[in-house]
Amino acid sequence: MKIKNTRLLQALKLEPVDVPPVWLMRQAGRYLPEYRELRTKAKNFLNLCQTPELAMEVTLQPLKRFDLDAAILFSDILTIPHAMGLGLSFQEGEGPQFAKRIETIKDVEALPIPDTENALNYVVQAVQLIQQELNGRVPLIGFAGSPWTVACYMIEGSGHKNFITARKMAYQAPEVLHALLTKLVVATTQYLKGQILAGVNVVMLFDTWGGLLTPDYYQRFSLSYMKQIVANLKADPQTAHIPIILFSKGASVNLEAMAQSGANGLGIDWTVSMRDMRARVGNKVCLQGNLDPAVLFSTPQIVQATVRQLLDEWGAHPGLIVNLGHGIEQHTPIENVEALVEAVHEVKR
Amino acid sequence: MKIKNTRLLQALKLEPVDVPPVWLMRQAGRYLPEYRELRTKAKNFLNLCQTPELAMEVTLQPLKRFDLDAAILFSDILTIPHAMGLGLSFQEGEGPQFAKRIETIKDVEALPIPDTENALNYVVQAVQLIQQELNGRVPLIGFAGSPWTVACYMIEGSGHKNFITARKMAYQAPEVLHALLTKLVVATTQYLKGQILAGVNVVMLFDTWGGLLTPDYYQRFSLSYMKQIVANLKADPQTAHIPIILFSKGASVNLEAMAQSGANGLGIDWTVSMRDMRARVGNKVCLQGNLDPAVLFSTPQIVQATVRQLLDEWGAHPGLIVNLGHGIEQHTPIENVEALVEAVHEVKR
Repeated sequence: MKIKNTRLLQALKLEPVDVPPVWLMRQAGRYLPEYRELRTKAKNFLNLCQTPELAMEVTLQPLKRFDLDAAILFSDILTIPHAMGLGLSFQEGEGPQFAKRIETIKDVEALPIPDTENALNYVVQAVQLIQQELNGRVPLIGFAGSPWTVACYMIEGSGHKNFITARKMAYQAPEVLHALLTKLVVATTQYLKGQILAGVNVVMLFDTWGGLLTPDYYQRFSLSYMKQIVANLKADPQTAHIPIILFSKGASVNLEAMAQSGANGLGIDWTVSMRDMRARVGNKVCLQGNLDPAVLFSTPQIVQATVRQLLDEWGAHPGLIVNLGHGIEQHTPIENVEALVEAVHEVKR
Repeated sequence: MKIKNTRLLQALKLEPVDVPPVWLMRQAGRYLPEYRELRTKAKNFLNLCQTPELAMEVTLQPLKRFDLDAAILFSDILTIPHAMGLGLSFQEGEGPQFAKRIETIKDVEALPIPDTENALNYVVQAVQLIQQELNGRVPLIGFAGSPWTVACYMIEGSGHKNFITARKMAYQAPEVLHALLTKLVVATTQYLKGQILAGVNVVMLFDTWGGLLTPDYYQRFSLSYMKQIVANLKADPQTAHIPIILFSKGASVNLEAMAQSGANGLGIDWTVSMRDMRARVGNKVCLQGNLDPAVLFSTPQIVQATVRQLLDEWGAHPGLIVNLGHGIEQHTPIENVEALVEAVHEVKR
């Protein structure tokens, strides 16, 4: 299917665009009343993800309101460990919770590689439905969690402010962690390949917890495994043409190493300056970011001024995707999201 | 009183030392059985802080076990808002909780500046008792939270993984936040002056949440207020001679600006390389850090190798204080803490 709005794909190829593409992490989410309505009907978050028609509807909701340059599959980074049998649930008002957690090499060995055709087929179906519905309007981004980030939850058994159990394992039992990450590389490669064959146009790896590691351990336990996934996808003729974005939150100190990963784009969080990041990696790679999600609690005028400042600082270089530096917050006013998207596209007029 | 072990003070003056000084953030804490025993007796955490004899005993506990080069006052960064009447409590297994929180300019105006002689006199007494007991063995570090970090809790009303309410205020009602921070500068200056007059030899500002801000907002809402406190203390002949350490966790991208703050030392978290930080600020300022607290869950051999690597990478430059990059974790094995301290002092032999 021919894609009409190619800004995102051009930016990822470092080609000039009329205006920078814009999309927002967690753009389909709780700040939208129509999302909250569907979420109530679906009873719980996992049902939303696992019912292709609902995942499709949620994915498209923000596209109906805002002039966004990309859709992103509505799903969760923990679908893989759930499909591996760890028993994922989401308690109301709490984060994710696993029934089982990974402690020993035996636990790792017992994990199956989930078959995308079966255990994760709901994702394949959702992608197909979304692409039918999008009909080439904008590209669709597929995604997975990074092996390290997914391992954090599998080892901790739930969310945790600093994932000390997973970080301990890196020092106490690195061989167990390496075995787990190696298995996650296989599973994640298959999973992303499944998404690509079903129709996604770009894939992104969310490394939400890469920034909890020392630079040495970031390279050893997070980046090196993301690189394996990138290499796997780039080596396969069926997936080689799909651009890949890596996002390691809080790890921008390692940007030069990330730029060598083979990925086409790098996500940047809001705690650093895009101009500085650009200066550090030159024209080698596309950068995506990095507005503070908190700015969306100000006014449309302030949001617009902040977007203009980002674009002015960036200048005329290619390879910019405008986004937030982290997911959109729950109570974000919708008029400020509108102002953000409009301000990015305004430069054209 | 003459201090016998002057390594910490020499390092802060960038003078050569026989071996680098070492102390550990949260060195008096839950990983020590003798701490847990006192904590149980005291019924709750606030009682421990507010009873000078107990605070003294807890402060000295790690000095009895380990060959540390500094003591740090046992207290909490939220003593100031508690003394301002916000009603601090610590629920078992939860973080801090305030009975009232700050939302409007009226809330800020209603806050008193606590009188160190009265509302915070327990801290003054604790410092005096500790210094009697230490008898010049090592310097005593006093501390406070940074205005931004303390404001985070006052606005949020409790701990929160990303303090979105406080970050929102920076965009929605910056004048309220500025008023609060200005008041906290006055209160914190008085408080640290009180600690200095009572006998502390070094003071440290803990800016645990500075890293949640964009670089621009870090300078505007966190660093600029810390600089005011530094300037206040350096301008007062009674406090001018006391070295000051700033620690903004997760904000090392702003290191050059911190090095211009007037502080003598900068704390560095574990997610960056000390060698890189050193290269960025040259010989202008002492650096303190930055071992990963998680390494203390490995073995004494691995801890020692990690310390040696830090010292090797640092080289012969003056101005290093060895510490963790964040507070010591609750279940840390004591033999690994021993190994850390020994490995630092071993270079001498």
